[in-house]
Amino acid sequence: MKPSIPRGTRDFGPAEMQKRNFIFSVVKKNFELFGYEPIETPTMENSETLLGKYGEEGDKLVFRILDSGEFLEKIPLGEQGQKVLESPKVESFITDDLLPILTEETGLTDEEIEAGNIDFNKIVPILGEKFIHFFENIKMSDLSFFSNEIVRYITEKALRYDLTVPFARYVVMNQHNLTFPFKRYQIQPVWRADKPQKGRYREFYQCDADIIGSNSLINELDLISLMDKSFSELKIPVLLKFNNRKILSSIAEIINAKDKIVEITIAIDKLDKIGKDGVVKELTEKGIDASSVQKLTPLFDFKGSNADKVKVLKTFVGENEIGKKGIEEIEYLLLNSNTSAAEIELDITLARGLNYYTGTIFEVKANAGTFTPSILGGGRYDDLTGIFGLPNMSGVGISFGVDRIYDVMEELNLFPESISKTSSTKLLFAHFDESNRDYCISLANELRKNNISCEVYPDVTKKVAKQFEYADKKNIPFVCVIGSNEMQNKRYMLKDMSKGTQEEMSLEDIINKLSGQA
Amino acid sequence: MKPSIPRGTRDFGPAEMQKRNFIFSVVKKNFELFGYEPIETPTMENSETLLGKYGEEGDKLVFRILDSGEFLEKIPLGEQGQKVLESPKVESFITDDLLPILTEETGLTDEEIEAGNIDFNKIVPILGEKFIHFFENIKMSDLSFFSNEIVRYITEKALRYDLTVPFARYVVMNQHNLTFPFKRYQIQPVWRADKPQKGRYREFYQCDADIIGSNSLINELDLISLMDKSFSELKIPVLLKFNNRKILSSIAEIINAKDKIVEITIAIDKLDKIGKDGVVKELTEKGIDASSVQKLTPLFDFKGSNADKVKVLKTFVGENEIGKKGIEEIEYLLLNSNTSAAEIELDITLARGLNYYTGTIFEVKANAGTFTPSILGGGRYDDLTGIFGLPNMSGVGISFGVDRIYDVMEELNLFPESISKTSSTKLLFAHFDESNRDYCISLANELRKNNISCEVYPDVTKKVAKQFEYADKKNIPFVCVIGSNEMQNKRYMLKDMSKGTQEEMSLEDIINKLSGQA
Repeated sequence: MKPSIPRGTRDFGPAEMQKRNFIFSVVKKNFELFGYEPIETPTMENSETLLGKYGEEGDKLVFRILDSGEFLEKIPLGEQGQKVLESPKVESFITDDLLPILTEETGLTDEEIEAGNIDFNKIVPILGEKFIHFFENIKMSDLSFFSNEIVRYITEKALRYDLTVPFARYVVMNQHNLTFPFKRYQIQPVWRADKPQKGRYREFYQCDADIIGSNSLINELDLISLMDKSFSELKIPVLLKFNNRKILSSIAEIINAKDKIVEITIAIDKLDKIGKDGVVKELTEKGIDASSVQKLTPLFDFKGSNADKVKVLKTFVGENEIGKKGIEEIEYLLLNSNTSAAEIELDITLARGLNYYTGTIFEVKANAGTFTPSILGGGRYDDLTGIFGLPNMSGVGISFGVDRIYDVMEELNLFPESISKTSSTKLLFAHFDESNRDYCISLANELRKNNISCEVYPDVTKKVAKQFEYADKKNIPFVCVIGSNEMQNKRYMLKDMSKGTQEEMSLEDIINKLSGQA
Repeated sequence: MKPSIPRGTRDFGPAEMQKRNFIFSVVKKNFELFGYEPIETPTMENSETLLGKYGEEGDKLVFRILDSGEFLEKIPLGEQGQKVLESPKVESFITDDLLPILTEETGLTDEEIEAGNIDFNKIVPILGEKFIHFFENIKMSDLSFFSNEIVRYITEKALRYDLTVPFARYVVMNQHNLTFPFKRYQIQPVWRADKPQKGRYREFYQCDADIIGSNSLINELDLISLMDKSFSELKIPVLLKFNNRKILSSIAEIINAKDKIVEITIAIDKLDKIGKDGVVKELTEKGIDASSVQKLTPLFDFKGSNADKVKVLKTFVGENEIGKKGIEEIEYLLLNSNTSAAEIELDITLARGLNYYTGTIFEVKANAGTFTPSILGGGRYDDLTGIFGLPNMSGVGISFGVDRIYDVMEELNLFPESISKTSSTKLLFAHFDESNRDYCISLANELRKNNISCEVYPDVTKKVAKQFEYADKKNIPFVCVIGSNEMQNKRYMLKDMSKGTQEEMSLEDIINKLSGQA
């Protein structure tokens, strides 16, 4: 068997782990500097917690976990049959075999039944055991329909798709024990059944900070400072784009297409990819009339400074209430934010896919190099916890995409050189025979008591060169070769691997020297 | 919708995270002190990587991920039918509908086909399209059989069950880039579809350290020191039981039941639960003859010191080669290990479930309190990478069970008191109005530049008491209330929340004072 791993997933070896941990530590440190506290939620959520929260496309990308045991038994038969019958497609279940049973039990004619005017929920108790027969006659070749129907019953659990929905679920479940406004950070992987490509993985980490239970705009300001400080410490020059969903809502109102807000958002979000003409075409296809589309077009080639853009926007929005509120929020953030690594840009075409955003939305891209995927996203949601039974909890949050930050830092060569050259092991004890080696163990344990990381080469071999090679490949900076002289005199030759020098020392000297380096 | 999480999974709030992180940090620090380097593997592995490695019971506990899209299309029909036919249970597929097709196409009689003497692989091309019909006639009511058959085709991926098998897979895939002996640590969750109960979760963390590519016993010694040091720092008194699989092998040889080694291991492993009589009964049921069982019984009530036990064992093993090797290894470890927190006990009935162990095996339990589940397990495996194509790579490793260590530490009240009383936030800025609050932001950013964690209460409220309550609930040790006087004089009253005292200071004084506390 030739081993492999699933498409879109990755192993991380020691060198990659060091670089990844560098990013995690910077982000985590800044989360804590700004007063966010850690939580973790389970990898597996109930499917019903996740489904319906990420749009139709999102639902398809949720990885579902097959129920354990005799999972097919969970497909409703007989007493639970009504669940299946609630399906809008259920008419297609009526096979030639089922018809006579249905006419006999209901007294309806074939035609009445086929026309669909039959209350399935009422006949389920009548059918009882005969209902099993109904399932026996489903054609397995009708797979596509059957896949969609069956999946609901055999996958109670699914893999976390993002950290925001589980956070909302957590807040609702723990509302009586939390202090609001509640500031939490969460650093965990998420999974999406997306087509893998450069910068897009099926398993990747999100690092989220959210504050919920406060609608103050200073939370947005705080998050801008947090992003700016983090990217500054990672040395990534970034473009921080922002917009406000209230502007998108006002646009929909102004062109009398309030019911088309989702379609408008999706179309405008594609401006980068399909250009102005593409967006106009898509809007028209979605049923926006020509004069309304005409009204929108000035927004697509918004140029100039942020102040210039606000001016144009004010004219466009006029007296529209929600639009004015959006502009007010935008102006507050432009006036009060203060960044060093991040260039802030108001981007009226920024929409972000997720339906739950209602106010400010953020997106960050690297402002250098050729590989510039989105490396952070976020925004304000006024009622995300509402679906779980806790309405009116406004929150705002951001999510760092560590895997893409890693890719960008590799491309721009931004990892500190020291990272890849460092081993956690400071010293290797080498030796010639078994008694030398066993003596090394006691020396090693003394060093470890003093928090100095070290190793004893485990195998007995006369080849000291092989042991040096091991130290070299692992980037271990010091080697001490122990022979019978060393055991007798308790003086040890400490070799500095990078300088090539060596020095005779006592164990205490070694401890003192390497403690300084820890 | 009332939100919930799947059975056997847990959310971790800030207080629990602090305690969990304390355990992780101790274990991680010690892994690094002993020269182990971090790796991470994907949550999802190919199902074929995992299945067959944990015994029949283990396979049932692996969580499988439903393939995305039209997963039912993957169930082989027609041209891929041969896969299904490879199933040993395929005879039960031969329905009355299929029989006439098979006799017609193969020329065999009904009796010959039903007896199973038919080469299915040969007839698949003959059957061709008619094979679809075969599937249409499978009775959905035969669910139990169908579940088992179908699951192989609709779940290409599964959730990690432990860290050892993915590690072996990683080593084989990366063998040309690794320096051997390779010492790695790995801290990640694993998933098992086990029945949840106290101390048994469906999602839990393992912290593994393994060294592979060296069969030296000093690796076992090193791991004993590592365990001892870690539990000592966690302040858990522990009983470290060990045994050697070679002893179990020799026992099987001595009683002429070499082919029953797995059954003997499983039976002996239950001694704690079912007692001596239970084990005797199980061994007899598994076909071990009475005189052999009689020979084994002295081993079941092994008493006295480790040295006493070795003496009895030597008599039992006599001249059996593998037994003598096992005793030699046991004596080496008893002679050379040196522990402080851990009491070491040779336990000849310790077997450990996993099939891949071949030498030393370890198990650790708390040596105090009433709740004493296994909190660490491990052992030596001589050929775990063999199944993935790299034979003769001996390795040894241990796995800390963080979730149970947490439960034991809670029960024994072992977490340092400081942990639950500490907030990462050092200071809260409180205020009276909007201009006060906005001024706080600039103060907060100054503190953060100096790596002092702080927060500004985000909402404008005249109720300063509410802001103090927030600080109190979050265990924030200092509060600074900013009013117009403070803004004018740039002198701030720093209130110590635990002492109840306050002191007027400049921003610089505050920074100096709180830096010392960071």
